Amino acid sequence: MKLYDYLPSGNSYKVRLLLSYLGLSYEHVLLDIHKGETQTEDYKFKNPVGQIPLLELADGRRVAESNAILFFLAKDTPYWPATHFEQTKALQWMFFEQYKHEPSIAVARFIRMYAMDTRVGELQSLMPRGEAALGVMEAHLATNFYFASTGPSVADISLYAYTHVAGDGGFELSDYPNIMAWLDRMSDHPRHIRITDTPML
Amino acid sequence: MKLYDYLPSGNSYKVRLLLSYLGLSYEHVLLDIHKGETQTEDYKFKNPVGQIPLLELADGRRVAESNAILFFLAKDTPYWPATHFEQTKALQWMFFEQYKHEPSIAVARFIRMYAMDTRVGELQSLMPRGEAALGVMEAHLATNFYFASTGPSVADISLYAYTHVAGDGGFELSDYPNIMAWLDRMSDHPRHIRITDTPML
Repeated sequence: MKLYDYLPSGNSYKVRLLLSYLGLSYEHVLLDIHKGETQTEDYKFKNPVGQIPLLELADGRRVAESNAILFFLAKDTPYWPATHFEQTKALQWMFFEQYKHEPSIAVARFIRMYAMDTRVGELQSLMPRGEAALGVMEAHLATNFYFASTGPSVADISLYAYTHVAGDGGFELSDYPNIMAWLDRMSDHPRHIRITDTPML
Repeated sequence: MKLYDYLPSGNSYKVRLLLSYLGLSYEHVLLDIHKGETQTEDYKFKNPVGQIPLLELADGRRVAESNAILFFLAKDTPYWPATHFEQTKALQWMFFEQYKHEPSIAVARFIRMYAMDTRVGELQSLMPRGEAALGVMEAHLATNFYFASTGPSVADISLYAYTHVAGDGGFELSDYPNIMAWLDRMSDHPRHIRITDTPML
């Protein structure tokens, strides 16, 4: 199993985190998105969308989209909930993550981490949208330990990735005590790994 | 079963289309997003994200996010693929739909349909992003009749919703012959319904 990856990416980190929880080994292919390494003809043959992460199986089949990779890997493990309704809720939160959370929080982080002067103007709309997403999570966590089920699932792994580094995007996580407590529960997992301390390859 | 809905919404249409395929009846609650009817305290109690569609079950449980609702309804039907790999591919395309396709094609359609003069500037970046998404679909359909499986699945229903009205957003579908042929295959379904001929409530 081969994971095409870029270390600072939260989308890729989701996959690395689940692979660690499951104790699965894999070959790591690091690509630098800033050098166009996901936009080459060779790579776009593998993933026409030109993004990481991409999981390539031993038989050559490939899966793109971080949350679809989580679904693929979590089958028959505790991280894919047992009931159909909880499975639906896990997906509901994962679609929320890709539609409301990642496009605001991850993009604000990207603009600030790489000091992209030409895109600083976007922060004016990104910040309130990110705060709104964090507000929805905070309210849910007021009465739930996790997002879709009684234990951590693919939904929690998905949301953890960019939430725990939201500070890089200028969000003040201490304003969200329920989120802070959930982040602690997540990082207490015995097989937890960190996103990386090395933002640049 | 109750569907909170706004007729011109492609996200809601996905759900109506699958409900029609399955021959399921439901109560229809129409909300006008332009009058703030999804932003009231009552509605945000039901769906904290303040969006349609929202499915409410007879026992009061609720599911938000159009693609999660499709997953919920498609269980044990031909529209949820049989194998785990095909299920993964269906979700891969549905995450593509919410991350790459809907945020460009549906937003361009929204800006043009409602002649939102203050947002016309966004079209400059939305149009090439929408063309890129259509290009990825066109290439896939060069060698496949459907997206995730040998027959139509939730992935096709999801992508059909905003693709078939991409013309409203200024996209020229006749540039994409494989997409045109797939749209015809989809609308040939014996239980096909149209999004609506009435764009305003």
